[in-house]
Amino acid sequence: MRIKLYFSYDGTAYHGFQRQKNTPHTVQEKIETILRKITSEKVTITASGRTDAGVHARIQLAHCEMPEWTSRLLLDNRLRLGLNSMLPKNIRIWKIEKTNPQFHAIRDAKKKTYLYFIDQNSIQWPFLRNYAWHLRLPLDWDAVHKATPLLIGRHDFKAFCSAGSSAKTTVRTIEEAYWDVIDSPFGPLHVFRITSQGFLKQMVRNIVGTLVSVGNGKADKETILQALKTKDRKFAYHTAPAHGLWLWDILY
Amino acid sequence: MRIKLYFSYDGTAYHGFQRQKNTPHTVQEKIETILRKITSEKVTITASGRTDAGVHARIQLAHCEMPEWTSRLLLDNRLRLGLNSMLPKNIRIWKIEKTNPQFHAIRDAKKKTYLYFIDQNSIQWPFLRNYAWHLRLPLDWDAVHKATPLLIGRHDFKAFCSAGSSAKTTVRTIEEAYWDVIDSPFGPLHVFRITSQGFLKQMVRNIVGTLVSVGNGKADKETILQALKTKDRKFAYHTAPAHGLWLWDILY
Repeated sequence: MRIKLYFSYDGTAYHGFQRQKNTPHTVQEKIETILRKITSEKVTITASGRTDAGVHARIQLAHCEMPEWTSRLLLDNRLRLGLNSMLPKNIRIWKIEKTNPQFHAIRDAKKKTYLYFIDQNSIQWPFLRNYAWHLRLPLDWDAVHKATPLLIGRHDFKAFCSAGSSAKTTVRTIEEAYWDVIDSPFGPLHVFRITSQGFLKQMVRNIVGTLVSVGNGKADKETILQALKTKDRKFAYHTAPAHGLWLWDILY
Repeated sequence: MRIKLYFSYDGTAYHGFQRQKNTPHTVQEKIETILRKITSEKVTITASGRTDAGVHARIQLAHCEMPEWTSRLLLDNRLRLGLNSMLPKNIRIWKIEKTNPQFHAIRDAKKKTYLYFIDQNSIQWPFLRNYAWHLRLPLDWDAVHKATPLLIGRHDFKAFCSAGSSAKTTVRTIEEAYWDVIDSPFGPLHVFRITSQGFLKQMVRNIVGTLVSVGNGKADKETILQALKTKDRKFAYHTAPAHGLWLWDILY
């Protein structure tokens, strides 16, 4: 029986989503350990994508194979309630449903949206320290807003792909990319929203880092154009910190 | 030289504001330890009030005596920058200023405002777990809104004062007390706002706990009236958890 899990996590305490040999502190490990306890079988979950250490997921989706007999645990949300009672509170399962045996969390994802939060307060709010990038010095937001649309569309994003990627092609299509300002109890926050069918390794963090360089005058629109044209990493060298990044939505 | 410190803290990791013999994990201890390092003298800070373990301060104010020579550290914000570089990021100093030798952070506080956040989502967001009380079952907010104004004005709040208080009188004047709904990236949150010249031990948490009992039908308006009239703790027995409570503003 194949199931879909919808869940959120606060990435602060984790070395990323993906299971690793040398640490038990990954989101995948936490969820799989409990599924193995419940089923007494080796269960492996496959999520829509990895997230780096410190990156958060408002919503993440994974599929996995479960023994047939566990279908009765789907009644009255017993599996979800059981998982949530055993998981740490920085991971929460929203929904579990049976799906067809062909469903694949990576291949079937049509679009993903990431958000990136920037806090421009003079001093960093303690409450935002793990959730937004604190940049004290004012940025030229006008320049950032003008450079951002250059990324929209089908381009080779090789310059924005970190080393160690196993992607076959570095061409991706950005469907939307824009900045907004939202109100928070701690004053306004700048939020970058980007949607694509798929992203390369650390691509959003590399894009945000480069756009911030445009905002602080170390780069300009031409840098973005050169990065896309030459595919040279030297034009997009700055990687924004992980803790400002959120996997926000996935469309199947 | 007497100084005023304005600061914020995330109370999650602390056993409250006030220094304690058996733990170094208090906000007061963290700040005093660094002031002692800087001055090589025993410095004691006095804040506008204590906060319980897990309670947050958007803004807190304290005064302390510093050796005269440190007045040069107030130039170019050197003392503030030095403190912030040595303090953990869950405490941030916003401002430090010289004040008159009579200034007293407790006695001179004219009004304090606390906020209390309630998250009514079906499942608790990991990101709100330390900052809002998660109450899954819907409350009768209409009943809560109607009962709340009964607390406004001058009353004996003995029923809402936890054991172990050293207050001389339990009479307090509530200037404002109301509920609001604010938008957040995780959906609407219910926020209680209460302002008074002073509060008794755990008074806001006891008030919120009792108002929530009105919302879930275990109490009603009459309970509040009886609590104020009889001063009997049995009418206000429920203490809301600390992590939803925020010291929000202090007026001098």
